[in-house]
Amino acid sequence: MMARNTDMRWRLPLVCLLWELAMIILFGVFVRFNAESDIAGWEKAKQEKNITSDAENDFYFRYPSFQDVHVMIFVGFGFLMTFLQRYGFGAVAFNFLLAAFGIQWALLVQGWFHTFENGKILIGVESMIGADFCVGSVCIAFGAVLGKISPVQLLIMTLFQVTLFSVNEYILLDLLHVKDAGGSMTIHTFGAYFGLVVTAILYRPNLEQTKDKQGSVYHSDLFSMIGTLFLWMYWPSFNSAISDHGDAQHRAAINTYCSLAACVLTTVAFSSLLQKKGKLNMVHIQNATLAGGVAVGTAAEMMLTAYGSLIVGFICGIVSTVGFVYFTPFLESKLRIQDTCGIHNLHGMPGLIGGIVGAVTAAAATEGVYGKEGLIRAFDFTGDFSHRTPSVQGGFQAAGIAVSLGMALAGGPS
Amino acid sequence: MMARNTDMRWRLPLVCLLWELAMIILFGVFVRFNAESDIAGWEKAKQEKNITSDAENDFYFRYPSFQDVHVMIFVGFGFLMTFLQRYGFGAVAFNFLLAAFGIQWALLVQGWFHTFENGKILIGVESMIGADFCVGSVCIAFGAVLGKISPVQLLIMTLFQVTLFSVNEYILLDLLHVKDAGGSMTIHTFGAYFGLVVTAILYRPNLEQTKDKQGSVYHSDLFSMIGTLFLWMYWPSFNSAISDHGDAQHRAAINTYCSLAACVLTTVAFSSLLQKKGKLNMVHIQNATLAGGVAVGTAAEMMLTAYGSLIVGFICGIVSTVGFVYFTPFLESKLRIQDTCGIHNLHGMPGLIGGIVGAVTAAAATEGVYGKEGLIRAFDFTGDFSHRTPSVQGGFQAAGIAVSLGMALAGGPS
Amino acid sequence: MMARNTDMRWRLPLVCLLWELAMIILFGVFVRFNAESDIAGWEKAKQEKNITSDAENDFYFRYPSFQDVHVMIFVGFGFLMTFLQRYGFGAVAFNFLLAAFGIQWALLVQGWFHTFENGKILIGVESMIGADFCVGSVCIAFGAVLGKISPVQLLIMTLFQVTLFSVNEYILLDLLHVKDAGGSMTIHTFGAYFGLVVTAILYRPNLEQTKDKQGSVYHSDLFSMIGTLFLWMYWPSFNSAISDHGDAQHRAAINTYCSLAACVLTTVAFSSLLQKKGKLNMVHIQNATLAGGVAVGTAAEMMLTAYGSLIVGFICGIVSTVGFVYFTPFLESKLRIQDTCGIHNLHGMPGLIGGIVGAVTAAAATEGVYGKEGLIRAFDFTGDFSHRTPSVQGGFQAAGIAVSLGMALAGGPS
Repeated sequence: MMARNTDMRWRLPLVCLLWELAMIILFGVFVRFNAESDIAGWEKAKQEKNITSDAENDFYFRYPSFQDVHVMIFVGFGFLMTFLQRYGFGAVAFNFLLAAFGIQWALLVQGWFHTFENGKILIGVESMIGADFCVGSVCIAFGAVLGKISPVQLLIMTLFQVTLFSVNEYILLDLLHVKDAGGSMTIHTFGAYFGLVVTAILYRPNLEQTKDKQGSVYHSDLFSMIGTLFLWMYWPSFNSAISDHGDAQHRAAINTYCSLAACVLTTVAFSSLLQKKGKLNMVHIQNATLAGGVAVGTAAEMMLTAYGSLIVGFICGIVSTVGFVYFTPFLESKLRIQDTCGIHNLHGMPGLIGGIVGAVTAAAATEGVYGKEGLIRAFDFTGDFSHRTPSVQGGFQAAGIAVSLGMALAGGPS
Repeated sequence: MMARNTDMRWRLPLVCLLWELAMIILFGVFVRFNAESDIAGWEKAKQEKNITSDAENDFYFRYPSFQDVHVMIFVGFGFLMTFLQRYGFGAVAFNFLLAAFGIQWALLVQGWFHTFENGKILIGVESMIGADFCVGSVCIAFGAVLGKISPVQLLIMTLFQVTLFSVNEYILLDLLHVKDAGGSMTIHTFGAYFGLVVTAILYRPNLEQTKDKQGSVYHSDLFSMIGTLFLWMYWPSFNSAISDHGDAQHRAAINTYCSLAACVLTTVAFSSLLQKKGKLNMVHIQNATLAGGVAVGTAAEMMLTAYGSLIVGFICGIVSTVGFVYFTPFLESKLRIQDTCGIHNLHGMPGLIGGIVGAVTAAAATEGVYGKEGLIRAFDFTGDFSHRTPSVQGGFQAAGIAVSLGMALAGGPS
Repeated sequence: MMARNTDMRWRLPLVCLLWELAMIILFGVFVRFNAESDIAGWEKAKQEKNITSDAENDFYFRYPSFQDVHVMIFVGFGFLMTFLQRYGFGAVAFNFLLAAFGIQWALLVQGWFHTFENGKILIGVESMIGADFCVGSVCIAFGAVLGKISPVQLLIMTLFQVTLFSVNEYILLDLLHVKDAGGSMTIHTFGAYFGLVVTAILYRPNLEQTKDKQGSVYHSDLFSMIGTLFLWMYWPSFNSAISDHGDAQHRAAINTYCSLAACVLTTVAFSSLLQKKGKLNMVHIQNATLAGGVAVGTAAEMMLTAYGSLIVGFICGIVSTVGFVYFTPFLESKLRIQDTCGIHNLHGMPGLIGGIVGAVTAAAATEGVYGKEGLIRAFDFTGDFSHRTPSVQGGFQAAGIAVSLGMALAGGPS
């Protein structure tokens, strides 16, 4: 395993135990079930809102998606990184550790920003999805620093990144009133650039970054495909998990499905074009095929349409594959940024594209397509934001990209 | 990887890129969201049909099943074929490619037959299930030609097979008004015999078809069991995915669960009986245990009952295992049909049995068991078909088997 | 594979075939669809209970959880045991066989106890979950005897254990009126101690129990992590699968999520503390991280709260890891109990803790927290049990632990 320094002996156990004790105290003081998961609360909600069916409990709208996201975070990200054969088991195990560590802190910090009422943080199935999303952002950053960081450093990075993630998300969703259901900006852009900054700081001249050509590379590639496929298959659930009930979840799933399918074809095309003798590069298949899911994160729940999604997937398969071939070596040799797993190609650039696609899609929204009620519902043009127009919304969406990027670049060093 | 011919250098990239461009144009012209996934459409549907709850959106009835089917197509079929150690990574990667390629075309062709309104193809969650089903049929055929076909040939086969699949499905479901929710006829019978015809045409005398006895066979078998188990576990979702909401989906899941359980026992029994020294043959465990799911595809949503399902599973475990031992060698030596993965045993014969079971179950339906309303609802005896009786329906079901078989045998060569 | 004795040649096939024939006959005589999966039954139920939506069919409340549980039983338990490299494929294959064998018998026996009406056993989606749960208990016991038992012996053990499981469950749930939705007592405690008794009887002095240090241990560990992660991720579904619709399922999922997250941290801490040089022990990561899910099995659907769940997870990570380091060797050397996979650490002790946590949580329930209606609903204080108070319920819960333990210890030898 990755542990080569002495901090495993005392520091890691100490950090884990003290941290968990702190979690217990903080949860004890602050965390309670929300109305839909509290026994008395659900009885009351049913009466007050005249709900007659338990099928209206948010659990049934969200839980299947939550489980899919959960698989993506633990199996998807964990096994994806096994393509680096040297880090096989370590990648899975430390991804497991950071995620289990991070979700607890994320429940607290995100709850503090979003569901804090009367001195208590109220949690439910949406909180679990939120925590998994937040940790997903750390899993992404982990891909850049894999092999250069000790477990304790990883936990400290997790702690810090989860906090900053939640602040950034609060600025975007609440202050700027930006839509980002699949997290192109909040999860992918933020996670990728945060990780790149950290890995730049931890630059090690002699890091053996290239893939070992040892005996069992063959099986490492199959393990990695387990990660790739579970990410690819469940991405429609990821992008639809916290969209509004009904048509929005439905639409987000379809758009993501289309974008991912297109992305596979252009990844294969460019992987073959850019390799000697036209052979496919397995790292491209394992990674770039996923870029289409990243890049419809913001706009999937909007009226992007299947056609628009195909275009996004088409472009991202190309951008991501070209990134692996030309950009990653450039980053390392010129900018001294060692991007172990190529997260800039899979999450960085596609995340930025996703933010832009979201801004354009929002700005292009019309009452003709969305309906009058639909337009208000899609962008929550209510309350303080009832005077927003689609084009203004597009501007704020663009601001969201800049904020996410800025927070990541500023936050990484600190 | 499988690529040994020169077409990887230019032809594969070209085909992928041009095809994807064509898809973008066709989707742009023809494809729109259906009422349940369109923002204005769902608002309107809720008003018109007096729907008060988003839980009534088709998304919630179908999406969990869709995800299970999605896993079956990509992880299930992909990893199942890794038991052929020579093709391990290629099997997974090219299964991925063909499926991503095929689902886009399937959305179009199937939509054209089933949800074409006012010049537009309307898509929703059921379209995604339909596209995955259609591609599943290609994955089956891929099992017969694995190792003999270049990637470009594979894509051409996919294109052709998806089209023919949709024509055949249209004939069965719309013209003959046949029920085939789990696709014993449309998916398995058609896919298997199509693949067998293609592999017969591509006959190569010296193909090294048998399993290499090299070092890591052990791990190949474990990878293959990942495919087997995900297919086996999610098969109840496969057979219930597009059944009517409520009792029909419920019933389809239970019948499939029972049939598969029985099939495991008879597979183990015959695998042990037919091997020297009574050892189990891993290929049988990896494949024949699934035959029970294939063979209740047509009848699972009917009142087949748990008891009937056990009988079907019992028989198919035996037929499929015996097929691997005696029939596959016979096909190769006498008929020059090299069935690399043994799809005739897993999909061909069980698919035919499934069609027959469906015809018999339909013909045996009575008002006593189904109720008057139930009988009409189960077989859609409405409109042009309101005069059908169960025995007539049984006859049409039988015709459906013949049509599927004929289309596959005629379509393969062309 | 594990088969080294002659019973594979005739006995195994014979047992499988005869057993399956018996199943067909018994299912034919006794098993029918319940009202929600029967076509006429669901029509009638909708009319009688004035149900207007198919979303009210139990299928939609239970099926996603069922599938998750299904994955846990077949992929989770199957692959978890591959960390014992000698038994890799055998572990997966025989787990598959015993589970497929066991679920059929479980449908019958559990149905006989719980849904027997007018001479018929009525089955639905909840029956499938029940059967999977029951077989889960056998998979646990299998972990103790792996490598010492022939396939036929395994099937006989399954037959016997499923029967006894159902009797024990009947005593707990129906006679003692105990709550145990996630099965801390009925599944884990019972399964673990049953298995330990069986393995004690089958003691073999020279069993090579320790892990082989051969070439591919690396990959064995990755396969095993597939099992671990699918168990860990889907455990919230396991503990919420048969809870009441709505808030109870919601709560059970959250509590389990929290407990498991905490458990990972203390497992890592103690694994590192107790190993030389502070390296993590992979067996601990693969097993002890799951103990938190076992130990909230009984109380997860109650108002345990996230805070209480963290405490339970905290303790169980420690108990389980310490068990692997000190207790398993002690069991083998002093008590001649060879616990191949360490089930006493993962299921035995955490199961007992889970029973105790359930008893305490039940005894501590108040109208203030649950609401008047909520308290009655949570513990089914209706009919014969309408006079029970929480403290009395706590006493019966405690009795349930003793009964489960007693049945397991008494049943194993017979």
